[in-house]
Amino acid sequence: LPGPLVISLLTDYGLVDGFVGALHSVVRRAVPSAPIIDLTHLVTPQDVRAGSMALARAAPYLAPGVVVAVVDPGVGSERRGVAVQAVGGPAPGITFIGPDNGLLPPAVDLLGGAGTCVELEDRGYWLAALGPTFAGRDIFAPAAALLARGADISDLGRPIAAETLERLPAPVCRRLADGSVEAEITWVDHFGNVQLAAGPGDLGANLRTSHLLSLAAHGAALGSARLVRTFSDLAPQELGLLVDSYGQLAICLNGASAAAHLGVLEGDLVVVSNPAPSR
Amino acid sequence: LPGPLVISLLTDYGLVDGFVGALHSVVRRAVPSAPIIDLTHLVTPQDVRAGSMALARAAPYLAPGVVVAVVDPGVGSERRGVAVQAVGGPAPGITFIGPDNGLLPPAVDLLGGAGTCVELEDRGYWLAALGPTFAGRDIFAPAAALLARGADISDLGRPIAAETLERLPAPVCRRLADGSVEAEITWVDHFGNVQLAAGPGDLGANLRTSHLLSLAAHGAALGSARLVRTFSDLAPQELGLLVDSYGQLAICLNGASAAAHLGVLEGDLVVVSNPAPSR
Amino acid sequence: LPGPLVISLLTDYGLVDGFVGALHSVVRRAVPSAPIIDLTHLVTPQDVRAGSMALARAAPYLAPGVVVAVVDPGVGSERRGVAVQAVGGPAPGITFIGPDNGLLPPAVDLLGGAGTCVELEDRGYWLAALGPTFAGRDIFAPAAALLARGADISDLGRPIAAETLERLPAPVCRRLADGSVEAEITWVDHFGNVQLAAGPGDLGANLRTSHLLSLAAHGAALGSARLVRTFSDLAPQELGLLVDSYGQLAICLNGASAAAHLGVLEGDLVVVSNPAPSR
Repeated sequence: LPGPLVISLLTDYGLVDGFVGALHSVVRRAVPSAPIIDLTHLVTPQDVRAGSMALARAAPYLAPGVVVAVVDPGVGSERRGVAVQAVGGPAPGITFIGPDNGLLPPAVDLLGGAGTCVELEDRGYWLAALGPTFAGRDIFAPAAALLARGADISDLGRPIAAETLERLPAPVCRRLADGSVEAEITWVDHFGNVQLAAGPGDLGANLRTSHLLSLAAHGAALGSARLVRTFSDLAPQELGLLVDSYGQLAICLNGASAAAHLGVLEGDLVVVSNPAPSR
Repeated sequence: LPGPLVISLLTDYGLVDGFVGALHSVVRRAVPSAPIIDLTHLVTPQDVRAGSMALARAAPYLAPGVVVAVVDPGVGSERRGVAVQAVGGPAPGITFIGPDNGLLPPAVDLLGGAGTCVELEDRGYWLAALGPTFAGRDIFAPAAALLARGADISDLGRPIAAETLERLPAPVCRRLADGSVEAEITWVDHFGNVQLAAGPGDLGANLRTSHLLSLAAHGAALGSARLVRTFSDLAPQELGLLVDSYGQLAICLNGASAAAHLGVLEGDLVVVSNPAPSR
Repeated sequence: LPGPLVISLLTDYGLVDGFVGALHSVVRRAVPSAPIIDLTHLVTPQDVRAGSMALARAAPYLAPGVVVAVVDPGVGSERRGVAVQAVGGPAPGITFIGPDNGLLPPAVDLLGGAGTCVELEDRGYWLAALGPTFAGRDIFAPAAALLARGADISDLGRPIAAETLERLPAPVCRRLADGSVEAEITWVDHFGNVQLAAGPGDLGANLRTSHLLSLAAHGAALGSARLVRTFSDLAPQELGLLVDSYGQLAICLNGASAAAHLGVLEGDLVVVSNPAPSR
């Protein structure tokens, strides 16, 4: 017996204003006991690309049901609201609801790609909006609530082709002429770990734990980092590189913030070189 | 068949200390599966008026059930704890529980006004308190849990008259001699939008989209703002005025914080003038 | 009829990254309707002792079920993951899951001490981890989900002796030669109240409300504080000492932050003297 659909939420709404509470309220007016998960509401305001990466990190672990994702600088404009059903993933048929601005596709891709897609243009389930600037409360949450009550994605609006969904540039990860790898910083987490848009495979096959790699950013050396398994393998203040819990390479320190230590930010490019093979 | 009562929470407890977790725990010890909504817990500490306005914004969307609201500088003193049942609203019989210090009435008013009101003086359901400074955990959450288990509001204490509830001054909104409108800033949201205590009707009937209005605060001009439908109607750095998702006028920028740009704060008074008709 | 097990979470994960959402998702993939409580996720990063004290404050109010607590600088190392069943407490059999680094024992002690303890070494329920640094998602949450589905603690791994669990030093509270009490600051809360590792009994039996006590820290006088029942008993800027909602002594102001006023921090030692009896 399948359980109720879980409604997972990811936004840039912040936690101060009651915007998140409004989403919960709208869902629970329709389905009082609906299980709701707050994936995060602290995406950098209006940073659609950061939101798309946060959603992609969450994707492989999502509970079966509906995901409402909102980072939406174009709210109230002609940009479409969409629902996109993933083909595969941890549970079949997870449906993503949000603006058509590039936010959803990276997560959908990780769950087998897009199956049925619709534009949320059936105003029958929209809330009567006093102003057009809170689509999360007035359109997306009601759409999710409708699915939670058993509706089909096709009840939300007219079908659209998955190929018409907006997409944003993927994070940079490329091999340079000297064999080193240049990778974008995709994420600086709460602990100051610096995730790169590169996995261990991008560094070549001859890497072993304890191998030393050189790091550079903005044309300046950041120092060398030791390839380790976990934080506590590092001495205090020793820079490390590990495969993080999302399978990506991350620069880290033991018990301190690597991002603060290095002075790097999300979006910066880091060059990782393997001194041994390159000499 | 009605679902279970939803318990909605709004406090100034912050998210660091475990105060919110204590409310959830107390409710769930009585009703493990109770649906709980965190409306917000980041009301400015001890700012009862800000809390009352946040609660009023949430009111029209509340799920049927009980609202526990706590911004309570007088905790442990002679101020009363009360439960107030709203007469109307999105779902009948929503009951507000909290301190009698002005926090609840604006939300109750929006839901048709107060029906039955009681003082929470029946100590039978109170938790044995080690100190008197956490009424949310020791009195209000147990009262909500009792209602969630099917009790009637009259089980919480003796009836009191709605007219005896404390009230705070309403936000300022007045027409000046020159026909302009002076309105209090009721809210600066996460994105820096500046909500005024004025709706579109307060500006007069002759307004059209793209109309330019003059803004001033503290006796100094803030610039002119264009009346728009949504953020993306504005050019970069162009000041706008729109009807926000709560039906109020709000000063905004496209993709930036109007509050930071203008240097204004909640509680400031803004004068909005309509240059054309006034000349 | 007992309700479903409640899963309570306490971590230092922060609210920005989606770490908390991942825990919820993992639990809800196993039990979609599982009641989940976020006790707090804003423990100071990697501060195991602060986390252990926050967990102990939550302990007497916990809902029946499972507590997943994670403050885990040693994640991925040889430190054990454990599940510890409390003997007593508000509900029998509350089970704590987390790293064996001192985080859990103070809370377990408050609930009657440890009964069955196991090491989480049965990899059958672990998630396939891409890297070893997110035990909360990959080991602890799956263990909690297993219990929520009806498994017994013995299904999680092999029994270990409670005496082998790591423990951290208790907060300092001692009587000095001159009869004054030196107590560690165990907590500065959201409102700036300063909780001490001393209860009213530690100050001696002859205390009455309105009694004046002298406070000192770092060898310097902080001023005198009046023993009061609640905040509003104090005049503006008058320093007070009250029995807080956890039964501990706390230094406070009325409507302001005592910690900011005094310039003290968690971990500082405060000397409380009773001038009358000592002269």
